[in-house]
Amino acid sequence: MHYETVKLLQEFISTKNEVFLFSSTGTGFMEASVRNCVRRRMLCCINGSFGERYAEVAESNGVQVEKLQPPLGTPILPSSLSEALTKFPDVEAVAITHNETSIGLINPLRDLVSTAKKYGKLVFVDAVSSMGGTEIDVDEWGIDVCFSSSQKCFGVPPGLGMGSVSEKAMELSATAPNKGWYFDFKVWEEDQKKGRGTPVTSTIPQIAGLNAALKMIERKGGKRWYFDLYKERNQKIREGVKNLGLSIFPNKGYESPTVNCINAPKGIEGGVIYERMRGKGFELAEGYGPLKKRTFRVGNMGCVEMEDINLMLEALEDVLQ
Amino acid sequence: MHYETVKLLQEFISTKNEVFLFSSTGTGFMEASVRNCVRRRMLCCINGSFGERYAEVAESNGVQVEKLQPPLGTPILPSSLSEALTKFPDVEAVAITHNETSIGLINPLRDLVSTAKKYGKLVFVDAVSSMGGTEIDVDEWGIDVCFSSSQKCFGVPPGLGMGSVSEKAMELSATAPNKGWYFDFKVWEEDQKKGRGTPVTSTIPQIAGLNAALKMIERKGGKRWYFDLYKERNQKIREGVKNLGLSIFPNKGYESPTVNCINAPKGIEGGVIYERMRGKGFELAEGYGPLKKRTFRVGNMGCVEMEDINLMLEALEDVLQ
Repeated sequence: MHYETVKLLQEFISTKNEVFLFSSTGTGFMEASVRNCVRRRMLCCINGSFGERYAEVAESNGVQVEKLQPPLGTPILPSSLSEALTKFPDVEAVAITHNETSIGLINPLRDLVSTAKKYGKLVFVDAVSSMGGTEIDVDEWGIDVCFSSSQKCFGVPPGLGMGSVSEKAMELSATAPNKGWYFDFKVWEEDQKKGRGTPVTSTIPQIAGLNAALKMIERKGGKRWYFDLYKERNQKIREGVKNLGLSIFPNKGYESPTVNCINAPKGIEGGVIYERMRGKGFELAEGYGPLKKRTFRVGNMGCVEMEDINLMLEALEDVLQ
Repeated sequence: MHYETVKLLQEFISTKNEVFLFSSTGTGFMEASVRNCVRRRMLCCINGSFGERYAEVAESNGVQVEKLQPPLGTPILPSSLSEALTKFPDVEAVAITHNETSIGLINPLRDLVSTAKKYGKLVFVDAVSSMGGTEIDVDEWGIDVCFSSSQKCFGVPPGLGMGSVSEKAMELSATAPNKGWYFDFKVWEEDQKKGRGTPVTSTIPQIAGLNAALKMIERKGGKRWYFDLYKERNQKIREGVKNLGLSIFPNKGYESPTVNCINAPKGIEGGVIYERMRGKGFELAEGYGPLKKRTFRVGNMGCVEMEDINLMLEALEDVLQ
């Protein structure tokens, strides 16, 4: 089942790179990208809390971090990435949060990777809340490390971090000093190639879950069908809240397909809406850090039926009145 | 449920130290002990493959490793630990594999910790295959880092690494350079103290499983009852194989209570017994590395009924004939 799941995931994200199933969350893979591939300095693109985490993880591993951080709610644009890479020519890698859940924003990943590649940089993509919810073409776009977690768009319980690692990233790992053992790409590659699966005990239930989810998607119409489902659900939520007189926080055109960050109406704090919705049995999410009072969030990752969205919107209408 | 499980485990291993529930296997905790607490040099006590892994993990983190490695099948004795610590006075920590599954041996942990403490050393205990199966009194014995995995003696699916961390180990972590983020004790402590549980998404199903297992043990008679059950099952296996004319590999008095390493009879390789038992529906274990041909192993971790043991012994009798 291990190898079948690896193969299914390789097909899903269109890559021939090694795909590892880590006994950790996605953040384990984030740490691995830094440890295995960066010696001194990297650029972190930051739109919110997960971009901040990437920077924190890199620094805690002794790596110097340069930051590209546009105003909250605006995406990373290829032009600003290009500027940053001109300003910091010696960064070895660029880390991009594909979909920043904390503010409900999706970055134009394909163009960002293409820009970073023009500068010859390694590219790491935190696809925790996007892999499964929208297209990612790892080989065609040229992503070196692209990781996610079981519990987001695939709707599997948490405890599995999965990702792809390019040949170039594997080569860098081969000579990385003090990279540790648990997340050493070379250790994982060896066991995978030798038919032993994983060097530590597999998170078996979650792998079984991911295997079942990937097969279910295949059976129901393949990944395009799944991406369309996300788009459809998300549009329904977005239009529903707009009909209630609310607006979406991030810049138009960059709204995430997997989570909506919604501006709270004047006079009501986001946290109050969150609490009241909770009282009605709907677990939404509070706003993030500086947006805690101004926003609340509605995700649609995993198993969410259209009927659930209708009921949620009805409850939200009640709460707002 | 997170905090309740932490409390139940603290009681189970008799400690007031922080207990963390890592989204990783036990080996994640092994890596954490090195990264958070060791600067330059440590001593690894090696009885088999998991002791070897500790040394490998330490070295991959840039730590110089001294080794105490008695002949295969013999335990680490306090006298030899004392000698080693006299020979290598500048090691900062001692790592001990409590129960070495690869050779079915249990070390005299209490006395070993006491010896290491006389030399003022930090003590790390890999209790992956012993925690739950035999007494460990963390505070009374003075263990600094004591970790295990969900899938061994507690019989829960894999994917959770849990362990205790002493105040002294926490202090060392506070000033450790380049210790990374994912396994940083201080990061985990902060979230736990602030009521947020864990800094990364919890491996929820496995925590629920451990919670249920600890409550089940409590309900059925407490940890003494559980330890006695292990002793009883293990004795039944050991006597059963002795009645079939077989002998146990490790030195008398140091046989593991959770897994028996059994010498294959003359003329039959351990691997053959393993394969034939498999054909009869019993998943035993092959011998470890240098003992692969000479031995095979029978574990009794998790949910094993006395009747299962009877059936296994009957099948083994058939296979030997």
